[in-house]
Amino acid sequence: MTTMTDVFGVLADDPITELAAQTRAQGMYPYFLPLEKSEGTEVVMEGKRLVMAGSSNYLGLNGHPRVRAAAIEAVQRFGMSCNGSRLMNGTLAMHLELEERIARFLGKEDALLFGTGYQCNVGAISALLGPADVAVCDKEVHACILDGVQMAGAQLARFRHNDSADLEAVLKLYAGTPALVIVDGVYSMSGDRAKLPEIVSVARRNGARVYVDDAHGLGVTGPGGRGTAAHFDCVPDIDLITGTFSKALASGGAVVAGSAEVIDFMRHHARSLLFSVALSASSTAATLAALDVLESEPDRPIRTQRHADRVLKELRAMGYDCGTSETPVVPVLTRDAPTTAAAWKALLDRGIYTNPVISPGVAPGRERIRISFMATHTEAQIDQIIAAFADIADIVRPGQVES
Amino acid sequence: MTTMTDVFGVLADDPITELAAQTRAQGMYPYFLPLEKSEGTEVVMEGKRLVMAGSSNYLGLNGHPRVRAAAIEAVQRFGMSCNGSRLMNGTLAMHLELEERIARFLGKEDALLFGTGYQCNVGAISALLGPADVAVCDKEVHACILDGVQMAGAQLARFRHNDSADLEAVLKLYAGTPALVIVDGVYSMSGDRAKLPEIVSVARRNGARVYVDDAHGLGVTGPGGRGTAAHFDCVPDIDLITGTFSKALASGGAVVAGSAEVIDFMRHHARSLLFSVALSASSTAATLAALDVLESEPDRPIRTQRHADRVLKELRAMGYDCGTSETPVVPVLTRDAPTTAAAWKALLDRGIYTNPVISPGVAPGRERIRISFMATHTEAQIDQIIAAFADIADIVRPGQVES
Repeated sequence: MTTMTDVFGVLADDPITELAAQTRAQGMYPYFLPLEKSEGTEVVMEGKRLVMAGSSNYLGLNGHPRVRAAAIEAVQRFGMSCNGSRLMNGTLAMHLELEERIARFLGKEDALLFGTGYQCNVGAISALLGPADVAVCDKEVHACILDGVQMAGAQLARFRHNDSADLEAVLKLYAGTPALVIVDGVYSMSGDRAKLPEIVSVARRNGARVYVDDAHGLGVTGPGGRGTAAHFDCVPDIDLITGTFSKALASGGAVVAGSAEVIDFMRHHARSLLFSVALSASSTAATLAALDVLESEPDRPIRTQRHADRVLKELRAMGYDCGTSETPVVPVLTRDAPTTAAAWKALLDRGIYTNPVISPGVAPGRERIRISFMATHTEAQIDQIIAAFADIADIVRPGQVES
Repeated sequence: MTTMTDVFGVLADDPITELAAQTRAQGMYPYFLPLEKSEGTEVVMEGKRLVMAGSSNYLGLNGHPRVRAAAIEAVQRFGMSCNGSRLMNGTLAMHLELEERIARFLGKEDALLFGTGYQCNVGAISALLGPADVAVCDKEVHACILDGVQMAGAQLARFRHNDSADLEAVLKLYAGTPALVIVDGVYSMSGDRAKLPEIVSVARRNGARVYVDDAHGLGVTGPGGRGTAAHFDCVPDIDLITGTFSKALASGGAVVAGSAEVIDFMRHHARSLLFSVALSASSTAATLAALDVLESEPDRPIRTQRHADRVLKELRAMGYDCGTSETPVVPVLTRDAPTTAAAWKALLDRGIYTNPVISPGVAPGRERIRISFMATHTEAQIDQIIAAFADIADIVRPGQVES
């Protein structure tokens, strides 16, 4: 266990810091790389134009004229900061408007905005749960869910990814303890959807509540981009849905939606809401505008998914292991850190920006290149992504290790 | 202890929810009130113009033409979201520029940006500390510090507010345990500064490190607004300084600054950084512009402090108890919830917006109206604030209860 004394004194012993030093020395450090230009499907890094295949701007709405105009108008009217928490001087009329709008969009009674997705999940979970409760989490839930459970001081139990039989076994172990089943709607590393109908049924049978973090589903999956619960037509069965605006909606902030009573409880108990500045007017206005665009252009999420379907089919045909992906998040398994770094660099050399994911981001042996798609990618860009993967097959050695 | 079952089932038993219901029924609910216009020293609420005396926009920079122009240009170039974490595709060249700039401004080797002040303190503390460490916190530190300690799973000890003798006693109790002394630079509820020279000396003598959250000091106190450590000329003695950009710098985001090695450690270990979207280009650019304005107009923090000094003198002369305030954060003690609500409403009726703070925001019996000042308040507005307090003396009954 690292102690504070280690951090201040013996940093070289930390494996991540060591890995960073090593890859930096080799000129292969793939993190915190500054983009000079980043908007839409092309970015500029070290003066070089790249196809962006590693952004959560799924609908291509970042920099959309209407979204941009709404943000700018809000900056002109309200400045950049609300200079206070929602509880105090930080609430704007437009916050209430967005809360009502997003609740309706998600099919829930009420909703509450947070500054970021991280703060939303940490705040909602730590307001809901205490030491007498258990959070029963899918093994692949996002890190901020675990941080929320840790802050809540709640008991933590995990079940095998998307395995409702294992979920049931875990719930039976905790019979008598109030249980909240927590899943992602769309998993950020594997790109598959939570099997909500099965999960809901197991949870109900065992008296548990269900919480879905739909960060990668909101705006992308389900009819009209209404999310994973809408995709499975089970919105009323989900107690709480969270989502972020910094991905498909190309803005900032996040939301938790549920019954009016539970949301009002959170309004007065979620510490990351009460003790943090209100969501900026510009993020609020941009999110409202992004919802307008999504509702008037329902083809956007369909285009994003079509790109993903095409690439998934081609990559799988080439022998790449894309796991259980079925959404615009597509992993290409590389299975160790050096292969991941080499594949990432080879794709970069071919003009494609991707995300290299190694342990502890994923379990050791499950390292991967993660790619993701935007509605605004052109067919030519998709061709270029496919061609680059065809070109680097020797590096990834698909099929060498069984999944 | 509240359990999840209570939240979903028996909400009426929750004291805060009950209080909310009660004040709402009386038309006296003072929270989450939507502002229709909020920028600078005047706001509009329910169609009524009010003097804003409850904002952390200390330098009056929110909506400053240069800050606004920088934010708008960034929206035009980069859109509203970085669509990824700093680790992955979210880093922009301007993030590195601001990190270097703010490190220099604070007199530290390196700095790391976070999305919000809440995330900054939670992320920095939970990266630094573990169960083998103890966080020794002033009793009045901001809530997010305690959330960080909780997430870290570290031991928590408290010492009496700004009392270095008590700090020393607590440190001696934990002799042998790596200790981090955590204080606010300027206390958000009392408006006094941490007595850093004494605190540093006690910490050093007992082998502890020192962490200062300067959310309300950055830009406001110290030479050129360089913060509380600069005010006491003890920057090198502070191991880590955090600050937010959503108060004096009128933007969004936050920073932790310290030695290059410790900051690099945080870069790879602070979960609220790694697992959250990067600070938006518009917040980053607005913060850079706000620093430009602050450096070219060093009179701003001095004007803010002058308003506070004048009001403190007048209110104390009227018999109000403003505690130990010595900064632009000024509490007026009301000492119970009904008096606080009545005073807040009476001030509102006189055109003054203030923040009513009741338990659990402060200890029971320490309820207060909190006011704060901006460099851009006019003398006429300051007169109006003073006159309103003169008018409501009967409500607050100053002097009735001893401090």
